[in-house]
Amino acid sequence: MTEREIPYKIYLEEKDMPKQWYNVRADMENKPAPLLNAETREAMTAKELGVVFCDELVKQELNDTDRYIDIPQEIRDFYKMYRPAPLVRAYCLEEKLQTPAKIYYKFEGNNTSGSHKLNSAIAQAYYAKRQGLKGVTTETGAGQWGTALSMACSYLGLDCKVFMVKCSYEQKPFRREVMRTYGAGVTPSPSMDTEVGKKILAEHPGTKGSLGCAISEAVETALKSEGYRYVLGSVLNQVLLHQSIIGMETKLAMDQYGIKPDMIIGCAGGGSNLGGLISPFMGEKLRGEADYQFVAVEPASCPSLTRGVYAYDFCDTGMVCPMAKMYTLGSGFIPSPNHAGGLRYHGMNPVLSQLYHDGYMEACAVEQTAVFEAAEQFARVEGILPAPESSHAIKVAIDEAMRCKETGEEKTILFGLTGTGYFDMYAYEKFHNGKMEDYIPSDEDLQKGLAGIPKM
Amino acid sequence: MTEREIPYKIYLEEKDMPKQWYNVRADMENKPAPLLNAETREAMTAKELGVVFCDELVKQELNDTDRYIDIPQEIRDFYKMYRPAPLVRAYCLEEKLQTPAKIYYKFEGNNTSGSHKLNSAIAQAYYAKRQGLKGVTTETGAGQWGTALSMACSYLGLDCKVFMVKCSYEQKPFRREVMRTYGAGVTPSPSMDTEVGKKILAEHPGTKGSLGCAISEAVETALKSEGYRYVLGSVLNQVLLHQSIIGMETKLAMDQYGIKPDMIIGCAGGGSNLGGLISPFMGEKLRGEADYQFVAVEPASCPSLTRGVYAYDFCDTGMVCPMAKMYTLGSGFIPSPNHAGGLRYHGMNPVLSQLYHDGYMEACAVEQTAVFEAAEQFARVEGILPAPESSHAIKVAIDEAMRCKETGEEKTILFGLTGTGYFDMYAYEKFHNGKMEDYIPSDEDLQKGLAGIPKM
Repeated sequence: MTEREIPYKIYLEEKDMPKQWYNVRADMENKPAPLLNAETREAMTAKELGVVFCDELVKQELNDTDRYIDIPQEIRDFYKMYRPAPLVRAYCLEEKLQTPAKIYYKFEGNNTSGSHKLNSAIAQAYYAKRQGLKGVTTETGAGQWGTALSMACSYLGLDCKVFMVKCSYEQKPFRREVMRTYGAGVTPSPSMDTEVGKKILAEHPGTKGSLGCAISEAVETALKSEGYRYVLGSVLNQVLLHQSIIGMETKLAMDQYGIKPDMIIGCAGGGSNLGGLISPFMGEKLRGEADYQFVAVEPASCPSLTRGVYAYDFCDTGMVCPMAKMYTLGSGFIPSPNHAGGLRYHGMNPVLSQLYHDGYMEACAVEQTAVFEAAEQFARVEGILPAPESSHAIKVAIDEAMRCKETGEEKTILFGLTGTGYFDMYAYEKFHNGKMEDYIPSDEDLQKGLAGIPKM
Repeated sequence: MTEREIPYKIYLEEKDMPKQWYNVRADMENKPAPLLNAETREAMTAKELGVVFCDELVKQELNDTDRYIDIPQEIRDFYKMYRPAPLVRAYCLEEKLQTPAKIYYKFEGNNTSGSHKLNSAIAQAYYAKRQGLKGVTTETGAGQWGTALSMACSYLGLDCKVFMVKCSYEQKPFRREVMRTYGAGVTPSPSMDTEVGKKILAEHPGTKGSLGCAISEAVETALKSEGYRYVLGSVLNQVLLHQSIIGMETKLAMDQYGIKPDMIIGCAGGGSNLGGLISPFMGEKLRGEADYQFVAVEPASCPSLTRGVYAYDFCDTGMVCPMAKMYTLGSGFIPSPNHAGGLRYHGMNPVLSQLYHDGYMEACAVEQTAVFEAAEQFARVEGILPAPESSHAIKVAIDEAMRCKETGEEKTILFGLTGTGYFDMYAYEKFHNGKMEDYIPSDEDLQKGLAGIPKM
């Protein structure tokens, strides 16, 4: 097939949609380290995890041997509402950059939640429903995950309680309204609904909250509410599993056209999108069947891979969740108010951490203003307004394409475009008005967070 | 092909995308009445129109004989960025309603401008560019058209000056920022940049503007700026022509699966989306090849078809544009602050007006609260957050499907889902908080506007 026969957008046919998720852990020689009970420091059992999480999701969390896991029909039916997602050949961007590189991106923003988060939200909601639960609790910062979960719960008739970090609740009222459109209960955190919320409000009157506090409130609410469990949109290995649908669709579409990416780029916060996109490609690399260059892009303001350490750490500031071995900046690290709220997490998914540690993946950190410059450049030629998170990957893809322009390399670049920026116009406005600030933590700043990582 | 083989989303292949627009006027026995010079009341000549509009667009405006008009390759390339748009089978909505009706919708919201407006914006910008112009001017109310035009101009390297009604400029700062992302200049109207703006501000200090005033400012700016022309996102027949791509894709996709719609529904403000969707189907009806039921849905607060008169009227409150024969409430009619800003126009496109007058099309008016109820119901099962404008069509489609449930009819319903509601969350918030108001103008209210229609 000649070059130009590749369309702008490659849509798989509905019948070709993957019927199984791919579990990259099955192909890893060094498995990711198990979650530990924060008190006993023993590996968490299924029974212990089952108090907080749904049973089937616990199984998936612990399963590092089955290469493929069937996607239930009900979830596949829901996926059909917005999947297959398009794989786009960025012809317009290539033309604009005058690069010999071939650029592709997998676009996950064509659903109302506006991001890839929906892929795992429907899976988690489905298993909760099948277990006969009444509802689920969760936290949301930027709001993408809360929106996705609200949509999924609304579809299944499941109650959804979202604790939204208070500053986001106030600054992003429209995100809140989308969740309400889907019938979710949205509570600004910290709240008077939980013990931990009351305690924090007593100690810090007027606080605008934090993700760590919202997690604690969501977990407490799940534990004390009959028929509820807690669900989480990133970091966990089960989430990576669900998100593998992104990479599987991408690989299938590329295979149909005989395209092989040389470099695969994804933004990385908790790691759900990056892990999902690269999973099947990484599988080939782990099995020695093919080679790819993988690049994780993180914000310079929250550089867990590039400046963190690989160690067991708490997953939340309240230390109510199990401990995970991961690249971390310390659970006490307070990320600066970077606009890419979805990348403002102190740690990285355990699977990705292990792969990075073993040299299968690279990482780099980029600054916010440069990210918005790339976002605007992309929006103007590709016609999609990217989320700040996704734009981290765009920035590195453009940089690589410009390098190819110098060297003449016809490299094939693939990146994940995780979502749209419709609810991030406040950040774009700051950028347009020249008021965007870059922030790189000093070594001293980092040291405070790193010092809080427990000695094992 | 059996029922269930129809996928959730039907995507045409890129190679099957229409290469020509369909000009429904060619098949009309009673042609729409010509535009008149507002002073002389004579039919506008191409030369007169060419002072305000681009030459090629003037030709298209006046062309009521050529059935098909080639879409230039450059426009088709741009269309590939976001087209073909999906035709969706609303399986989830049907299931929810438990209706025997089959419901389809053509979704035009999968592009950053968030609506179908981009189909005409790129065409108008292209012809302006080809004529060697420096830029274009326009007005925007709700902001969809301004955003679409900004995207198109950015792509072609054309300057874009948008006069945005001041109340929208202030209430929808994020719409403004999207336009700025695409490099457009956005001026709140009325402004001190034009004579008409200065005059209005002197007479009404502190006014928040109106669409009529913004049109006048945009036209004045085009007239006095070397190398600029004025462009418009609806009402004109050229716009209907460009929007015929919606209907042509829809018809092609339906034909591929052997689907024939019984009823075709579209929301109607200026008429661009409705006209575009129905054009090729209407063509068949006009030629006696097939029959369809067409329904225009307008807001009860601005009911030009259902309560207006068919007469020559001014297209703008400033009376600077040519006069058109159309269904109108009078150019002095001030629509209430209905949230569907895109449907707040006193008149209706001349082609649609003629077709309605000749009995080829029906019309109905619906109230705002009921529209938002339908919008929320739709969002919850179909996973798309609809624009308030589009939700007018959803409301009538759901009503019809529920009627079919009573009668057992397996009617095939098609409606146009013109765009997304990401920038309309303020309206959704009012709805959630029970603060949405319905407004139906009294006969006396209407009489004031109708009295201003000139006697010919």
